[in-house]
Amino acid sequence: MRLRYKPWAKDKLNEYPQYSIQQPEQYKGRWEEVFGNDHPIHIEVGTGKGQFVTGMAKANPHINYIGIEVYESVIVSALDRIIEADLPNVKLLSVDANDLSKFFAKNDVERVYLNFSDPWPKVRHEKRRLTYQSFLKIYEDLLIDGGEIHFKTDNQGLFEYSLMSFSKYGMLLKYISLDLHQSDYEGNIMTEYEEKFSAKGQRIYRCEVKFQND
Amino acid sequence: MRLRYKPWAKDKLNEYPQYSIQQPEQYKGRWEEVFGNDHPIHIEVGTGKGQFVTGMAKANPHINYIGIEVYESVIVSALDRIIEADLPNVKLLSVDANDLSKFFAKNDVERVYLNFSDPWPKVRHEKRRLTYQSFLKIYEDLLIDGGEIHFKTDNQGLFEYSLMSFSKYGMLLKYISLDLHQSDYEGNIMTEYEEKFSAKGQRIYRCEVKFQND
Ligand SMILES: C[S@@+](CC[C@H](N)C(=O)[O-])C[C@H]1O[C@@H](n2cnc3c(N)ncnc32)[C@H](O)[C@@H]1O
Ligand SMILES: C[S@@+](CC[C@H](N)C(=O)[O-])C[C@H]1O[C@@H](n2cnc3c(N)ncnc32)[C@H](O)[C@@H]1O
Repeated sequence: MRLRYKPWAKDKLNEYPQYSIQQPEQYKGRWEEVFGNDHPIHIEVGTGKGQFVTGMAKANPHINYIGIEVYESVIVSALDRIIEADLPNVKLLSVDANDLSKFFAKNDVERVYLNFSDPWPKVRHEKRRLTYQSFLKIYEDLLIDGGEIHFKTDNQGLFEYSLMSFSKYGMLLKYISLDLHQSDYEGNIMTEYEEKFSAKGQRIYRCEVKFQND
Repeated sequence: MRLRYKPWAKDKLNEYPQYSIQQPEQYKGRWEEVFGNDHPIHIEVGTGKGQFVTGMAKANPHINYIGIEVYESVIVSALDRIIEADLPNVKLLSVDANDLSKFFAKNDVERVYLNFSDPWPKVRHEKRRLTYQSFLKIYEDLLIDGGEIHFKTDNQGLFEYSLMSFSKYGMLLKYISLDLHQSDYEGNIMTEYEEKFSAKGQRIYRCEVKFQND
């Protein structure tokens, strides 16, 4: 992700509290207050410029979406998209995935999406991958029992690693496609990275995994 | 696999009892008698013409291999290869994988290889796939605790299915490569099908999965 520093991004996010959640600590365990209903909440971690989360919110009006992205200068592009679309069921949250337990309690979330997460290919950076064991623990702690992670990427190494990491954590592999765009999977909503890499002829890998009670 | 019926195959297999195991029921629980030593035993299920199992036996003299293949007219080609190589640590067994529990007791086998197993793509043929739940049970019942299956194939659908089937059975995914011939995996021994399909530019998928005690 090419990062341009945008000093005005924070101000812009603050200007739109109806889309960009301020002081998210206060909603831990009571996110229905943010959306004004108790529809299931799906979060995307590493949402980038928000094309996926906005597209999903349009397609699924009875699900509430939260796009989570650490960089304000990136998520501000997602904000533009949401202002434009004027959707009631999608919000943005500019925080680090490492801190999610400050903002979400057990059962707050029904599903986690991870799309084209940064691959961090060096072994010494394993802990930064969003499918590392410590992140799986964070997701499990905010999901309902039997909650799912839906993950897609073009990065072969990250996908291989993630399948092993999910298995090590004891998760069930419910669905896998090793070539999403040639599969019979329906209703795929493309992310920015997905459009870019699939246009270059890269395969897209996708899986759905489920936390299991032991 | 193009099958030519070879009426003489059975006789030829009988002629070489030192390579082709006769009345295997008698060795259940005491396969060390067949090999004359107690080295670990690895079996390949669906061994075809035996290139893999013979190559592995050459490369690993302290492991005993058994190639298992249901069709006598196919396994007879493996016999030719073994006669030629004259190796003490590889044997052939012409039986159906469904019957393996008649011939092997718990702990008889350390590892199961599955290479380019018939894909049986139709849903109604799922039970014939060698990675179907009932086959996993058969393998678990003859393996040591923590025994492994090492599986490779060019068939995307079978690989996807198998990953889900292993996960459903509670197995641990220890290793995966979504493009074996471009990976840093060392010491790969090619099978007949692997040579054929990789020459056509097909990707080879490979994984190692482990049974876990619960
Ligand atoms: C490669 S981009 C993909 C963006 C988008 N999901 C897509 O598919 O087009 C990964 C995004 O994840 C964000 N990210 C990485 N680590 C994060 C973390 N720990 N918490 C929140 N966001 C993170 C990055 O800032 C970046 O915007
Ligand atoms: C596609 S061929 C692959 C042969 C070889 N492993 C290779 O990679 O070149 C699959 C083989 O598995 C054998 N096979 C299929 N089902 C079997 C079963 N239930 N028991 C034993 N062998 C079986 C078939 O007869 C065939 O020879």
